Amino acid sequence: MHFLRIGEPGSERPVVEEAGTVYELGDLTADLDGAFLAADGIGRVRQALAAGELPPASIEGERIGSPVVRPSAVICIGMNYAAHAAESGAAPPEQPVVFLKTANTVAGPYDEAFIPRGSTKTDWEVELGVVIGRRASYLSSLEEAREHIAGFVCANDLSEREFQLEVSGGQWSKGKCAPGFSPLGPWLVPADEVDGNNLRLRSWVNGEIRQDSTTADLIFSVEVIVHHLSQYLVLEPGDVILTGTPEGVALSGRFPYLKAGDVVEVEIEGLGRQRQVFAQA
Amino acid sequence: MHFLRIGEPGSERPVVEEAGTVYELGDLTADLDGAFLAADGIGRVRQALAAGELPPASIEGERIGSPVVRPSAVICIGMNYAAHAAESGAAPPEQPVVFLKTANTVAGPYDEAFIPRGSTKTDWEVELGVVIGRRASYLSSLEEAREHIAGFVCANDLSEREFQLEVSGGQWSKGKCAPGFSPLGPWLVPADEVDGNNLRLRSWVNGEIRQDSTTADLIFSVEVIVHHLSQYLVLEPGDVILTGTPEGVALSGRFPYLKAGDVVEVEIEGLGRQRQVFAQA
Repeated sequence: MHFLRIGEPGSERPVVEEAGTVYELGDLTADLDGAFLAADGIGRVRQALAAGELPPASIEGERIGSPVVRPSAVICIGMNYAAHAAESGAAPPEQPVVFLKTANTVAGPYDEAFIPRGSTKTDWEVELGVVIGRRASYLSSLEEAREHIAGFVCANDLSEREFQLEVSGGQWSKGKCAPGFSPLGPWLVPADEVDGNNLRLRSWVNGEIRQDSTTADLIFSVEVIVHHLSQYLVLEPGDVILTGTPEGVALSGRFPYLKAGDVVEVEIEGLGRQRQVFAQA
Repeated sequence: MHFLRIGEPGSERPVVEEAGTVYELGDLTADLDGAFLAADGIGRVRQALAAGELPPASIEGERIGSPVVRPSAVICIGMNYAAHAAESGAAPPEQPVVFLKTANTVAGPYDEAFIPRGSTKTDWEVELGVVIGRRASYLSSLEEAREHIAGFVCANDLSEREFQLEVSGGQWSKGKCAPGFSPLGPWLVPADEVDGNNLRLRSWVNGEIRQDSTTADLIFSVEVIVHHLSQYLVLEPGDVILTGTPEGVALSGRFPYLKAGDVVEVEIEGLGRQRQVFAQA
């Protein structure tokens, strides 16, 4: 079951795809937002599908937006794959490293992307995105953490390395928040339909493979991350956690940084593939 | 002219205080949010006041909330006073240091505050808060930056130093996002009624002075911060920038960290005084 948001930016409508057919969700919810997820919206869609109550949708030729509406927070875990920590010149962390992106960086999976003004080090990062389904604070176990996850999305955690590392005083957010720097989607898969801790994830630049790894190599698993974060902040329904990127980014020195005209694709097994054509901002 | 939001959390209503009298703003706007600020809401309130069109309000005994509704982003500038950088063991930064708090940390100025679970190093930080009035991206001058500022608020940038510095891998947000960690208010003052770069700011714990400085000592002025941020991210109407704290926090080693029962007050000249009684979360 794939949840998508279809239409122009700011006026997307929710649909669900099941067994190759797309259905409108407008009778059940106005949008795929935190309120929908927290009120067991996914369960209600399942029931409506089983009862044959959803009208079929035609989405041919329409834009696909982020599969969740702009969240209250986009929370990122840094250095969560040992090989990526090594290529970045860092030791694997002993506890999750947490930083934030502004929520207005969220974009659709095929939207035009931009090299920020003044940038010479724009980089890609394929990442598993975790979408929170219920308010989470001071969770007591990994099992409880699992119950607070609504689903998973594919994400590209776009990054500008000079802004992040060279003119930042060591705080990464300055290189993480340029317009459109968090493409999400194309779809959200419910948490009980996929094993978030065992998914192949890959990226390509102009058709050449860059990253090829698996979330089985996450240093901190999806449940450990949600449990850990809930000790330090309140996760809200619809919030998105980007769980870190594997090796194979330009920061490693093995590949050139992005430039206008480049095409980046990122894909996660079962979660779909994104494609961004870059322009100069 | 002071803008306030009055009422219980989540159902505050907007009012304005002028020359000692409080007026209801419900006929002009449902809330003090980004849309209100971007549509020259402050100017419309001035006109309505001058025309005698606003009904007087009675707010006696009611809770005062944050003077702006939850923003899309709470953006913080670190180490922006030389003496505080020194007490934190750091050199003054050559460029603004940027990190983020989750927006759900915003609280009212007199709300009960909390020592997070597991915390032994909860700290206070009085800060000038800048409220954005218009969408800002790639601003070209400090003059243009000034035009994008709606007003100023008093803020307490509450911080947990072990979470921020010892179990964080160097990224500060883990110690900045506990529930209620960003009290704002009591009121917002329009940007043209106060000089944000020349305001005395102070803090007290249990009545003893802790911080006593002036925003004239900011390394990066209000306009420099807004201009700089706009080169790296999009500032939205209603977003809040916390501009950094002066010396005199517990991190310096000169004062004990906070414990349940402590009373923290922070005040900025012309922007009012906050008071939080701390409880254990």
